[in-house]
Parts: sequence; C-alpha cells; structure tokens
Amino acid sequence: MNRDSNIKVDLNCDMGESFGAYKLGDDDKIVNHISSANVACGYHASDPLVMDKTVEICKASSVAVGAHPGFPDLLGFGRRNIIVTPQEASAYVKYQVGALSAFCTTHGVKLQHVKPHGALYNMAGKDLNLARAICAAIFSIDKGLILLGLAGSAMEMASKDIGLRFAKEVFADRGYEEDGSLVQRGKPGAMITDEELAIERVIGMVTQHKVKSVTGREIELTADSICVHGDGEKALEFARKIKMALTDSRIQITNLANFIK
Amino acid sequence: MNRDSNIKVDLNCDMGESFGAYKLGDDDKIVNHISSANVACGYHASDPLVMDKTVEICKASSVAVGAHPGFPDLLGFGRRNIIVTPQEASAYVKYQVGALSAFCTTHGVKLQHVKPHGALYNMAGKDLNLARAICAAIFSIDKGLILLGLAGSAMEMASKDIGLRFAKEVFADRGYEEDGSLVQRGKPGAMITDEELAIERVIGMVTQHKVKSVTGREIELTADSICVHGDGEKALEFARKIKMALTDSRIQITNLANFIK
Amino acid sequence: MNRDSNIKVDLNCDMGESFGAYKLGDDDKIVNHISSANVACGYHASDPLVMDKTVEICKASSVAVGAHPGFPDLLGFGRRNIIVTPQEASAYVKYQVGALSAFCTTHGVKLQHVKPHGALYNMAGKDLNLARAICAAIFSIDKGLILLGLAGSAMEMASKDIGLRFAKEVFADRGYEEDGSLVQRGKPGAMITDEELAIERVIGMVTQHKVKSVTGREIELTADSICVHGDGEKALEFARKIKMALTDSRIQITNLANFIK
Amino acid sequence: MNRDSNIKVDLNCDMGESFGAYKLGDDDKIVNHISSANVACGYHASDPLVMDKTVEICKASSVAVGAHPGFPDLLGFGRRNIIVTPQEASAYVKYQVGALSAFCTTHGVKLQHVKPHGALYNMAGKDLNLARAICAAIFSIDKGLILLGLAGSAMEMASKDIGLRFAKEVFADRGYEEDGSLVQRGKPGAMITDEELAIERVIGMVTQHKVKSVTGREIELTADSICVHGDGEKALEFARKIKMALTDSRIQITNLANFIK
Repeated sequence: MNRDSNIKVDLNCDMGESFGAYKLGDDDKIVNHISSANVACGYHASDPLVMDKTVEICKASSVAVGAHPGFPDLLGFGRRNIIVTPQEASAYVKYQVGALSAFCTTHGVKLQHVKPHGALYNMAGKDLNLARAICAAIFSIDKGLILLGLAGSAMEMASKDIGLRFAKEVFADRGYEEDGSLVQRGKPGAMITDEELAIERVIGMVTQHKVKSVTGREIELTADSICVHGDGEKALEFARKIKMALTDSRIQITNLANFIK
Repeated sequence: MNRDSNIKVDLNCDMGESFGAYKLGDDDKIVNHISSANVACGYHASDPLVMDKTVEICKASSVAVGAHPGFPDLLGFGRRNIIVTPQEASAYVKYQVGALSAFCTTHGVKLQHVKPHGALYNMAGKDLNLARAICAAIFSIDKGLILLGLAGSAMEMASKDIGLRFAKEVFADRGYEEDGSLVQRGKPGAMITDEELAIERVIGMVTQHKVKSVTGREIELTADSICVHGDGEKALEFARKIKMALTDSRIQITNLANFIK
Repeated sequence: MNRDSNIKVDLNCDMGESFGAYKLGDDDKIVNHISSANVACGYHASDPLVMDKTVEICKASSVAVGAHPGFPDLLGFGRRNIIVTPQEASAYVKYQVGALSAFCTTHGVKLQHVKPHGALYNMAGKDLNLARAICAAIFSIDKGLILLGLAGSAMEMASKDIGLRFAKEVFADRGYEEDGSLVQRGKPGAMITDEELAIERVIGMVTQHKVKSVTGREIELTADSICVHGDGEKALEFARKIKMALTDSRIQITNLANFIK
Repeated sequence: MNRDSNIKVDLNCDMGESFGAYKLGDDDKIVNHISSANVACGYHASDPLVMDKTVEICKASSVAVGAHPGFPDLLGFGRRNIIVTPQEASAYVKYQVGALSAFCTTHGVKLQHVKPHGALYNMAGKDLNLARAICAAIFSIDKGLILLGLAGSAMEMASKDIGLRFAKEVFADRGYEEDGSLVQRGKPGAMITDEELAIERVIGMVTQHKVKSVTGREIELTADSICVHGDGEKALEFARKIKMALTDSRIQITNLANFIK
C-alpha cells in the first residue's frame, strides 16, 4: 500500500451528453464520484439547456468543469474521423469552448480544462499539426486552461510546444502497447474487463508510474487523471470502486487545477 | 441642417452570414460604412471559420463587434417563429454569445453588444417574458454588454427592468405605425423604397427624434443606431449615401460603446 | 360486452425515434402490441440506420408501416410550433415520406399511411391551409396512402377535399372538449390517468362511437385507430391492457389498410 | 472530325445545391446545356423546396434527373472524408435517393441515375466495400437505376458485381494518371486550365476512347458522360463550348437512359 499521502490524481468523466428529448448518462450520480467533468458542447452531443444544467450540477458537487469539444457530427456522436484542416479544428474548438464558457460565467464557475472528444481526441493524439492547432486555439482563449489528453500523445508534445498546461490521462479499462499508446479497439487485449485487474493497474499507474503492456512488458506511464464512465449501473459501480481503491491507497482525488503545473 | 456636432449615431449591419461553401453578403465592403457589426453565431447562419474571419475583418476596420444570436434554424435563416420557452431562448443566447466571445478574445476585441436576429428579434420585441429572459441571459454573461433592439419594444422595457444597457434601433427603409412599431411586411407603407425619402427620414429621426408614421402623423422616436444592409451593390450604395448624409448633417457616426449609458 | 365481431380498430404507436447513439422507446416490445407503426423520418427524430431497422422490425411482426413526418427540429423533437408556409410543409412531408419509402421498398413493405408528428400534427389539425398542403403532398406521392389524423380536425376536412383516405385517431389517455378537440395539455381533465377509465372510454369510443367530454356531456366520435405509447414499462403494460380489453370485447385489431375506404 | 453519327454521350452537371437563404449555382442556365442533372438531396446541400424546384426545372428542359447523395455534412459541403461503415453509407444513399424520388414522383419524372457526391464519390471510387454497399443500396431501390461514377473505379467494379448499370464519367478539366485515376488536386497536372485543350481531350475521349495521361502516355478510357460545372459565367461558357464542340463532331448529346445498357 502507498504511504505517501502527497500523491494526487484526478478522476474525470464525460458529462452533459443528453440532447433535447434524448437522455444519456447518469450525470446526477457519476458527479458524486469524480473530480473533473468533461462537458459536451453541442457539436457531437449536448444542447444549451443541457450545458446549463450540467455546469449547475458540477458546481453543486464541487466538480471542476472542462470543455469536451468534438466534431460537428451529432449523428455519429463525434466518434467518426472527419478529415478536417487544422484551421477547421481550431475554429471548432474555439467555438465550443466559448459556448461552454458562457455557462461557466453565468454560474460563477471557472473553466478548468479542455478534453477533445472521441475521434477528435484520437486524431489529435496522432497528428501533430492537428494537435498544435487545437493547443494554440485553447491557449489563445485562456493561457491558464489545461489540456487533458492521452499521455505520450501528439497532444502532449504540442502542448509543450505551445506552452499549454497538459494533464496526462490514463484509462482503467484499456490495454496499452509498449509505446504507451492504447491497444486499438477490436484487437486482443484492447479492453481490460476484469475489474479487479483494472483497479490494480490504476493503482500501479498512479503510485508506481508503471503498467504492464499488452505484450507483458512493464512500461512507464504517468497518470494525472483517470477516465471513468457514467452510463449505466455497472459503470457507476466501477467508478465507486476505483474511488474507494484510490482512497484506500491514500491517494488524494482532486481536480487538475490543484496540481497540474 | 443640424449644427449640433454633439449628435452621435451608430450604423449597424448584419455580418458573417456565410456558411461553409455558401457565401452571403459583401462583408469586406459594408464594413467600411458602418460602426457596429452584428455577427451571426452559427445557429441561423455562420460557422466557426466565418465567425473567426468576420471578427478579424471588423477589428481591421475598427468596427465594434456584436453577437447576433438567432433561432437554431439554418434552413429558415432564423426568420421563422419557433415557439420556445424563455428558458430555451435564454440558453440559446448564452450559447451563441459565448461562442462568439471566444473569437473576440482570440482577436483581442471586446464584445460590444447583442442584437437578436430575425424571428427572435421580432418575438422578443413583443413578448415581455421572452425579452426578459434574453436580457437576463446577456446581463449574466457581462453586465457591460449593450442590447440593440427596436425602440419602444418589449426588449427596451425588459432591459430597463434588468439594468441592461439598451440601444434604440431605427430602420431607414421601414414604415412606422403610430405606436412606434414597424408596419408589418406586406402591408402598404411597410417599406420605404424612395431612397431620398428614407435618408430624409433618418436625418429627422436622428436630429429631431421624430418621424412621420404610416398614417401621416408625426411620432417621437429616438435613434441610437440605424440598421443598414450589406448584401448587393444597391444596399452598399444606400449605406454609403446614408453615411454621407449623416456626415453632411454634422452627425458623428460612432459605435454604441461610445455613447450608450 | 360487444357481440358484433365485425368491429375493427387499429392500434398505432410512434416508432423509430432513436437517433445515432441516442436510444428512445422500446420498439422491440411495443411492436408486438400494435397493428400500425408511425415511423419517424429523420427530421424530428430517427436516422437512416434506425429507419432501416424499424421497417425491418415492423415487417417481422406484420405491423403496417406509416411515415411520421415532423418539423426539421431534432433539438425540439418536433414538438415546437414553427411558423412555416404551406409550401414548406408540403415539401417537408414529401421529402420525409420519400425517404421512408426507400426503406419500405428495400424491405418489400408497402407504405400504408402518413401521420404528421407533434407540432405539425397539432398545427395541421387547426390550420386548413396547412392541412390541405399536407394532404395534397401525400396524395401526389401515392393516391392509395391513408392520412392518420385527429378525428374532426382540419386534417379530416382537408383529406375529404383532396380525396385522400383518412383514418380517425383517438387517444386513450386524453380528455375531449365538447367539440371533439383534445383538452389542451395543462388544463384540468387534459390527461386520463386512471387506466381502467381510459380503457373503458376506448371501448366506448370504438363500439358506441361515444365518449364523455370534459364537461360531462357525451359526444359522438368515431375511432379508426387508437394511439398508444411505447416508451417505458408502464406504457407497454397499458398497451397490453388495451389490446386485451379490445380482444375481450370481440373487437378485431387490424391495420388501417384492411378497413379504411 | 468524327463521321460516325451514332456516337452518344451524356453531359452531366450538379444541380440543386442551394439551401434555404443560400443560393449556389446557375441552375436556370446550365440546365440548357446538359442532358443529365445530379440533384443534391439535403445531406451535403439542398433542401426540400430546392429539390422540388430543381426537379421542375429539369423536367421543363427535358433533362434527366439523378440523385446526388452525399455525406451528412452541410458545413463541409460533403467534401470531407467521413469514416463511415458500409452500412451507414448504404442507409444514407437509400434515404437520400428515396427523398428525391418523392419529388420525381410528384412531377411525373422517372429517376434515371445516382451519382455519389464529393468525398463519398472519391471514397467509394477507391474502397470496394463501400462501393458495393452503395451499389447494393441503389439496386435494392430500383434495379433500373444507373450508377454514374468514375471510369475504372471501385464503383465500376462493384456495379458489375451487383448487376447495376454503370455509366463511366470523365472530366474535361482534370488530368489523368496512367492507371486512369484522376491526378490528385494540388499535384502538377491535376487541372486542365486551357479550355481548347480540355475540349480537344473530351472529343478524343468520346470518339477515340483515349486521352493523354499526365506522364504523356496515351491511355484508354471510355466516356459515357462528361461532367461540367454550372456555377459562374465562366463555367457556363465552358459548358456551352463543350456542347458545341461535341455537336460539331457529330456526337449526339443525350441522357444516360438512352444508351447505357
């Protein structure tokens, strides 16, 4: 067990993904188990009423608010690659971050971070030009914002170039390649389905900065934030377990603004 | 001719109404003839790239930037009444004002005003609950913003209630009823097609605070801002003429932030 | 109990309202309790994959397929009045009916009827010009289609004018005014929440062509089709009960094409 | 000069690309110079009123109507690759072809062909799985439809597999690689800007089934239809010239249904 009570980690979850008459996620419940929320901004999910409500819920639970901009593809939930120019990606990020900022302002909440969603997250994790455009967009809106992205990705590299604060995200339920990238969905080892193992891996990533890759070799990996899910009873239960395991290991769960430099 | 050189008036025009491959308006030209721009925010027109470019053009010409939020109805260009709740209208305004604000921030431009577009403008001009929701939304984002709306409308009344600064808009090319409302389109006298007459009326509204209503009776009317159009050569030429006539009458054309209290 | 086994009635339900990642309704279950489905066409709900799947489900259960066109307002789920011209309404109906027809064709299913959705249903129920435009649009696509609409509404009148077959829809869970119109939502008596009473009323409407209005006075009313809902366990259970009560009363539940002339 | 008056070729152009308040293309003029129109279906461009009007214009000029389905990306005008599944592509094509079919039906016009638009055209030209899904979708709606696609592409191959009629499209203003594919935009030789040369190449493709590739080597290539553009005076003038040159060469310009087997 870890005895260093100075270890801090953030628990993040996507929130505010409902749209009009369509409900998605258990925002009211998951908000109790996380420290940072990635709030959808109306492009791949959400709408203005949902955004307003989501920021309100986060504030009431002292959960930090981040923008979760995605591709303009509600039909595909932002999960489909769209081949855009860096200029388009930049403008889409500014638009969505700005839109969410209005609701933060009216609720007296400070926007903490930006985490690109779905296909935009994946593409910007590999394409440095795209990543730079997104980082520059965020930086131009507010130099104090934090980019939450895959540890070791092009986004991390680009944020350093730009001078944007970066928080390294890890996944409890995903396998890692030796180079620190995620095992592609569909391939063997892509998903960690054993909950006990997943939790054990998380504790290892947070306290030892290590995780076993899909090949069996141990790799180094820093974890600033752990991504959890909030849709369905099983996901909620898993989030509760992760939180408890972290607390039992004397790891402090706190939002990114409290420790990312 | 007016000898009081202290009279100030704003010239406003809708800008940034292009969308993707679709071009609308002569923004590059009209920007030279106005002092304030109402920039579409992606709901009834515009997109993030267009918004970015439009703010840039305004800045280069020292034209003040305002948000021009509309109904989420690109197909109808925001000109069709949609029966929304005050809560929906409020959230739509916050979202759009926030989105445009991001581009203002990245260009180092201060957002000056908000002018609802089309059907939202018309409905909020008559429905006090809707107007109050919109005014409260704007005020909650930034107490310093100015609402640009129809003189004598429910929007003016609501802005007073809320404490939001209000700029009275008049139309050069529209007829007025005795109560100061616009003659409904389609009715006789709705449009002032004689350019000379239109300009004469504008000068009268600005300097004498009076205009002849459709019934022939003179009515009182304050003009803080004159709405001009920027699509097509004829509209541009008319904007040039109005500007020249105002200048000839020693009226100072300047943006709203310079004189609205 | 009714001993006349010749009485026929249709049970209809909205289906195919999911969209992308968003699920709505229990289509797989409700399809077992109805004879006709109103399938959303992508404007207020649904998408091409959902439409394809929904027609397939209907076919497998021998449920007749109808188009359920709505306003282009996914955000408002087609429930908000949009002030459109009759030409716009006509074109929207043609577009959506055509789109659904393609999936009917590929599944070898004949499109049976058209039922406007939500706000379009309500507006066309009161505005004869709108109703005529919609009826003419449907008739111009296929003279054999049936319009499913509120009994006694402008839609019924317009369909007669055009020569379009019309099926009179009644609601188990709604109160009626003396003139046969629905008691407006929000008013006392608008909703019939007592399930026993609702079923009793339905049996009366179908067998006696009578129902007690909100004022207590019995009114005449013909029921070709009863609208049921398919979202949630309670709605499904109520549909099951209605079906059983009709069967117990020896009323034949069958789709519109089998008896509407 | 060609003395064989039996040579037939089709001239096709994209039409109906306007959307709401946004106008695009000179449909009223280009319709006089072509034999087949590719009518946008509301996904990447167009709307129901535009579709209705476009079919009407085509009918009045005896121009054959084809569907021009694209990606659901109005913002990108369907020109951006979106990574969809073959199932999604199939459903999108069915939806759009069906929607346009309704307007063909109401105008008493027979739908002649389908030509995928923009990025969908390009992707289906290279991805055989995508092409097969699209061909099967078209075939399942109407076995008599013709697919208009790039000569030698995956679409041609897939249409043969499915049994769908295929018309080979060539481009007057584009360079060809030795394998018959188009030189990618941006590369040297991608565009043929010399009008005289472009016309000469077209005549050669139609009469000799040959064209000089970008490497200078002559390649074989069959031309059933020549793609022209209808936006702007220059495009219209070029279409007029092509038409005149073909007529001078005794080539009969006629729509696809008249000669594609």
